[in-house]
Amino acid sequence: MSAANPNASSVPTAVVISIGEELLEGRIADTNSGTFARELLLQGLHVTKMYTVGDGIGELQALLTQLADHVDVILTTGGLGPTADDRTRDDVAASLGVQVIPIPVDGAVEHLAEVYKKYHDHPATEAFLAQASMPAGAEPLRNGVGSAWGFMVNLGTRTRLYCLPGPPVECISTFRDGGASEDLEQRFRAGSSLAHGVLHTAGAPESVVEEHLRELIIDGGNPRLGITANADKVSISVLARSEEPTEPAEHLLETTLQDLQQRLGTLWWGRDAQTMASIAVESLQKAGQTVAVAESCTGGRLAAAITGVAGASQVFSHGWVTYSDQAKQQQLQVPADLFEQFGAVSVEVASAMARGARQVSGCDWALAITGIAGPGGGTEEKPVGTVCLAISGPDTDYSICRLQFARAGRDAIQRQSVRDALDMLRRGMNGLPQLS
Amino acid sequence: MSAANPNASSVPTAVVISIGEELLEGRIADTNSGTFARELLLQGLHVTKMYTVGDGIGELQALLTQLADHVDVILTTGGLGPTADDRTRDDVAASLGVQVIPIPVDGAVEHLAEVYKKYHDHPATEAFLAQASMPAGAEPLRNGVGSAWGFMVNLGTRTRLYCLPGPPVECISTFRDGGASEDLEQRFRAGSSLAHGVLHTAGAPESVVEEHLRELIIDGGNPRLGITANADKVSISVLARSEEPTEPAEHLLETTLQDLQQRLGTLWWGRDAQTMASIAVESLQKAGQTVAVAESCTGGRLAAAITGVAGASQVFSHGWVTYSDQAKQQQLQVPADLFEQFGAVSVEVASAMARGARQVSGCDWALAITGIAGPGGGTEEKPVGTVCLAISGPDTDYSICRLQFARAGRDAIQRQSVRDALDMLRRGMNGLPQLS
Repeated sequence: MSAANPNASSVPTAVVISIGEELLEGRIADTNSGTFARELLLQGLHVTKMYTVGDGIGELQALLTQLADHVDVILTTGGLGPTADDRTRDDVAASLGVQVIPIPVDGAVEHLAEVYKKYHDHPATEAFLAQASMPAGAEPLRNGVGSAWGFMVNLGTRTRLYCLPGPPVECISTFRDGGASEDLEQRFRAGSSLAHGVLHTAGAPESVVEEHLRELIIDGGNPRLGITANADKVSISVLARSEEPTEPAEHLLETTLQDLQQRLGTLWWGRDAQTMASIAVESLQKAGQTVAVAESCTGGRLAAAITGVAGASQVFSHGWVTYSDQAKQQQLQVPADLFEQFGAVSVEVASAMARGARQVSGCDWALAITGIAGPGGGTEEKPVGTVCLAISGPDTDYSICRLQFARAGRDAIQRQSVRDALDMLRRGMNGLPQLS
Repeated sequence: MSAANPNASSVPTAVVISIGEELLEGRIADTNSGTFARELLLQGLHVTKMYTVGDGIGELQALLTQLADHVDVILTTGGLGPTADDRTRDDVAASLGVQVIPIPVDGAVEHLAEVYKKYHDHPATEAFLAQASMPAGAEPLRNGVGSAWGFMVNLGTRTRLYCLPGPPVECISTFRDGGASEDLEQRFRAGSSLAHGVLHTAGAPESVVEEHLRELIIDGGNPRLGITANADKVSISVLARSEEPTEPAEHLLETTLQDLQQRLGTLWWGRDAQTMASIAVESLQKAGQTVAVAESCTGGRLAAAITGVAGASQVFSHGWVTYSDQAKQQQLQVPADLFEQFGAVSVEVASAMARGARQVSGCDWALAITGIAGPGGGTEEKPVGTVCLAISGPDTDYSICRLQFARAGRDAIQRQSVRDALDMLRRGMNGLPQLS
């Protein structure tokens, strides 16, 4: 293991534990693990393993006993609610050999009693009020969006344990604003030597992206690069580690990202939390321009992607989901003969939709999508996955036909098509080569 | 632990392992674990724990050694691709003390070589062809949508191990169509004694749903009930166990679901894989009717929900995303004075949008949504989360104003609003009381 490997012993390690029978039964998706994997990484910790455990008596305690003093941080989510199967407090207290006590914050218990009163005609149950309790010796973590308090405590001489509520909104709020993040930063970040960034690309498959940067992907090298392909983008993750004393991790990360951007040219479009839609909204805001969309097979997902970005109302006013030929004619002034001559899924109809949407809305730009998302509707000539896209704008007006990767299903075809439409806008707004 | 508890020893146990550094870094969300938790449960297995591990040398092997003969089934996803950090085959072979050999299926390796040739001008690398290999003694699992083969093999005397590729579409296909599901069913289902179902509700918070069925929720009881609240629905999960010889699990499940439906009355709307959108499309298909939608703050998500259902084109033709006042006037004929008098977020404007959408589209039904999804745009009188919804149909025409749970953010406000609009349609189509 080389000194440049982030697994090296100087990097603090962490384990994430998700608690709940509903996770083991697949009733709800566990998004917390991924969230905290990222949060901990950004704090400079290396997550070595993640667990999902049930809420049976003693299950968590057994795992804590096994992990104590073998990692620097354990973060748990779940098991802090008001029902009988919420056992995190008891299991941690048992691990520490202490009692569960009320949260030592003035009014914490009284506040819960008040909340309960609003919805019930009898006093709060003991189980409900237990949400404002914790193992003796722990420090409370305030939950700003729910009833259950979190807490943090030392486990053995090495391990710092953070216990957070389960609902995604509550656990991230309790972590960031309740005191956990700050505690973690004070303990580990100061000595941290990791920096992490992600670069997003569109317009080429994973194998082509990989060829652009193959010589940078070195097993155990520093920085460590990883490629992740989704239905709608290919991303490159960069994990940099300080090479003391000359090269801080942040600096190595930035120079690597700049190098990657140069190698990837126009394929690269954003980094970290940016999305193609957020980039589009931001570019339009900067340019003082607007966009309209006309959709068939994506059925509103392109509009939803754009309006999912806060502040979209400044740049977006009109969207159409013209699912039938008649709607395309009536709403977007697509000439009737185009359907007979070329079919509803054609570059001609896509172009007419974009031009119609631009004209009717008065927007600077318009995007249009018409295609076959399946599972039905495919023909030999136009199989499922055939999607025609068009853009109409100040200096740009063209349409293309793509065969999306169809075996991945209807949802993936729609996502790929939304990505392509937004990529056409990105290219159009920045004077880049057309998407082909 | 009572005999009715599904943890009882007669129920076979399973563990799910997700493999990949990209999961531990939070670069991609792990959806496989939840998928297989459900799949295994439906096959009658009790998933006792889930792990996410990295792809370091020997990491998987250590975990397999620890688990072998302690559970009936281990299912892994990931680590079967063509790169150096794909080590599942090697780790399993090391656990078994055998070599990795080519898949004993005629043409398997040759087919991969052909695939490679299409995209490269040199012969396939050894690493790429290794995707058609497995530990000696294992049985291959065909991957119908990707290059990497899966495999299954016995680990010790008790444990059956299934190794599947990582990409979600590939692992579920390899599991269901490649031979794993069949093998599992032959081994465990025959002796299985579990049945699982989920009932979905809308229109009331979790606490109210719980009150309807409190006496059925018994710790360790049979069936075991669980309630899960999402941003857009409250679901009741039922896990039934056979009480031999009189009560097979399937029968107990069905009688319980019927009991629940009676208790929940109009709150209940669907079960298992059904969604409010799939119910809407199905009902409209049966009635030979159509629906149009006009959206402001949900920005296309209502249309996307409906058109996300295969076959939606039979019942859906027109959708509008009228984000600006001007678009609402121009496209949906909302009278200009309503904006001055009541504001864009008002029951009056919502009603006018629904009526306009119905009239312009000629559809039987129309739904409209206008509101403040935030984070900006709220006022004291109309805070973020204020959403007005309207329905216009054959015998129904009304609008309501709701204050959605806003602390959960923009995305949750949009999801709740889509749910409410679809619930108004469900109630309207079935002659149920109006949503209030």
